[in-house]
Amino acid sequence: MSEQSFAPPERLLMGPGPSHVTPRVLNAAARPTIGHLDPVFIAFMEEVKGLLQWLFRTSNRLTMPVSGPATAAMEACLVNLLERGDKLLVCRNGVFGQRMVEMAERIGAEVIVVDDDWGRAIDLNKVEESLKANPDTRVLAFVHAETSTGARSDAQALATLARRYGCLSLMDCVTSLGGIPVEIDAWGIDAAYSGTQKCISAPPGLSPVTLGARASDVIRNRKTPVQSWFMDFGLVMNYWGSEGPRSYHHTAPVNALYGLHEALLVLREQGLENVWKRHAEVSEQLRIALEDLGLSFLVPEGERLPQLNTVRIPDGIDDAEVRSRLLVSHGIEIGAGLGPLAGKVWRIGLMGESCRSESVQRCRDALASVLADTGGNRSGERRAVV
Amino acid sequence: MSEQSFAPPERLLMGPGPSHVTPRVLNAAARPTIGHLDPVFIAFMEEVKGLLQWLFRTSNRLTMPVSGPATAAMEACLVNLLERGDKLLVCRNGVFGQRMVEMAERIGAEVIVVDDDWGRAIDLNKVEESLKANPDTRVLAFVHAETSTGARSDAQALATLARRYGCLSLMDCVTSLGGIPVEIDAWGIDAAYSGTQKCISAPPGLSPVTLGARASDVIRNRKTPVQSWFMDFGLVMNYWGSEGPRSYHHTAPVNALYGLHEALLVLREQGLENVWKRHAEVSEQLRIALEDLGLSFLVPEGERLPQLNTVRIPDGIDDAEVRSRLLVSHGIEIGAGLGPLAGKVWRIGLMGESCRSESVQRCRDALASVLADTGGNRSGERRAVV
Repeated sequence: MSEQSFAPPERLLMGPGPSHVTPRVLNAAARPTIGHLDPVFIAFMEEVKGLLQWLFRTSNRLTMPVSGPATAAMEACLVNLLERGDKLLVCRNGVFGQRMVEMAERIGAEVIVVDDDWGRAIDLNKVEESLKANPDTRVLAFVHAETSTGARSDAQALATLARRYGCLSLMDCVTSLGGIPVEIDAWGIDAAYSGTQKCISAPPGLSPVTLGARASDVIRNRKTPVQSWFMDFGLVMNYWGSEGPRSYHHTAPVNALYGLHEALLVLREQGLENVWKRHAEVSEQLRIALEDLGLSFLVPEGERLPQLNTVRIPDGIDDAEVRSRLLVSHGIEIGAGLGPLAGKVWRIGLMGESCRSESVQRCRDALASVLADTGGNRSGERRAVV
Repeated sequence: MSEQSFAPPERLLMGPGPSHVTPRVLNAAARPTIGHLDPVFIAFMEEVKGLLQWLFRTSNRLTMPVSGPATAAMEACLVNLLERGDKLLVCRNGVFGQRMVEMAERIGAEVIVVDDDWGRAIDLNKVEESLKANPDTRVLAFVHAETSTGARSDAQALATLARRYGCLSLMDCVTSLGGIPVEIDAWGIDAAYSGTQKCISAPPGLSPVTLGARASDVIRNRKTPVQSWFMDFGLVMNYWGSEGPRSYHHTAPVNALYGLHEALLVLREQGLENVWKRHAEVSEQLRIALEDLGLSFLVPEGERLPQLNTVRIPDGIDDAEVRSRLLVSHGIEIGAGLGPLAGKVWRIGLMGESCRSESVQRCRDALASVLADTGGNRSGERRAVV
């Protein structure tokens, strides 16, 4: 062991998360730790809840950060909303839809899968057909912004379908929240979870969730206990709730919550509409720059996420070598492909504080240099072909 | 909402955790966030594992921090080691034994409970009788240092009993690790979990776990999948493991891990034996000071934890008022009683960096002043009675 303090290298984080965390947020998280049952901290928890309600655009009382990564929040939503034998319809067009399937199977739910190509939005017609064929579906689960592919689906339309066919909607908005519009109340989303390390630009480790009245009713009327004690929202809300005396459930991650609070204040100051606009504009700059290098996008226009840009790796280019050179020689992290897309795509993130014109410029220049070094002037070749 | 950065008040943390986190550790946690799959970060993860092995005094390969509070690690150990119908023996002498019972019931385990009085160590004879009567017990679970009562049990003897009767030992060492000796390998403990916010003095949010070969074998030979995907050690170890390529499981809480790493370096520099000695000595100073105030201990001598001192609230003293005055007027947090001990005891922590002679002095003076204000000169009365 080195026995030395860890000195992280300087990186421009342009992968699928974590995104850049500003010194302001890091410094907030480094303020003195106080007790999680301190009245001052409890008032602070109320503020965090209020800021999350603002960000989710909801008045849901049950809105709070889960004390764990988004994977824990995903599972928490599933274990609370589903009982053994309940039917769940999962839209699967990437890694995270598949993850929901695996979790739900472990709960003993009956899982119906509607598959779409990786890199495409969820096909609403197929979902509606499946809901018609499965009228006893309890929950329709989908990923708003697939972090593994960069595809954006129509969350509002999916929530409307869920209502029409009498089931709850559960939305993964890990990568969308804070980058593109997420409208929990206006869209009628029943349950949603996110993460702190994408467009919120706080350190990874917490995961905001929100549940509406219909979802809360389902949980309240369960016939069996939630299989996880740690994730039981009934217990968690006795700790995070504002009604009556709080009961101890676990020790809240005090400093991580300071960081999240500060990152949410930053978003308030910037204004959500401005933040969405910045993501759209800077992503357009990136599109132009990447196409100029001869790179093409996996996801069709109109289904692309501004905060996660997935480009095909040109023939003859060594995926790992390019990413390694970007990282080591240029200090830039981009993401690899996952699952069937491994070795075939790069995922270039423009999330939260990483979403700046300077990031585009640095990434473009570095990528041009590395591509020229590793595979000849691909840009010229491609342009000739196209 | 206040719309302002959160400025935590100055507190001397002498409750049951979190304990004082030094600026050195807070500053380490505030270093720039890098990607969780960055090769530099992966090397850093190996260092964290090595430091945890050192602290647990084990060579267990499966040693890592769970990305969640100790409650998540408790549940992670139970869901991995137990399958539906498996018999678990839980020693219950406080809140955390009870919590294990509740979690195991949700897993569908057959739970045998051996009860002891709150405030007493676990009775080895009763455990042995129960193991004899239940030869098909798969796991013997116990709390080494009961945070709800301040009682210390004989972990080595319990682990020996588990071996003798052919079951695994699962130890909660949340409050013991880093405060009193914890010897995973020398005692033959099969599985254990802890927390960062007690004697390690890192911010709350992570929970170190370690599993030995026998526990790993049990997990490897399970007939059914672990009911939690997030907590499945098989999947988690593909992420934290050092063999073969890492597979993505969740995004590690990067900055929290920086803080844990630094706190572990501090312990290395101080030396574990010195740290244990400090806890014993400072606790003895506290005992003298509290007895001088006329306060008496819940836990009999010989079964007391130095890092968590539980004293009876004198008759006629308003529990909540005293704690509130200590907090508001003196900036000192002490802990309330839990469950049947609510209103009957205070829990005064001397954990990690909170365990200093200065803490004892400040706590003694403040308590003397508050007790004099709220209930007359109790100290004089008690001394007269005793």
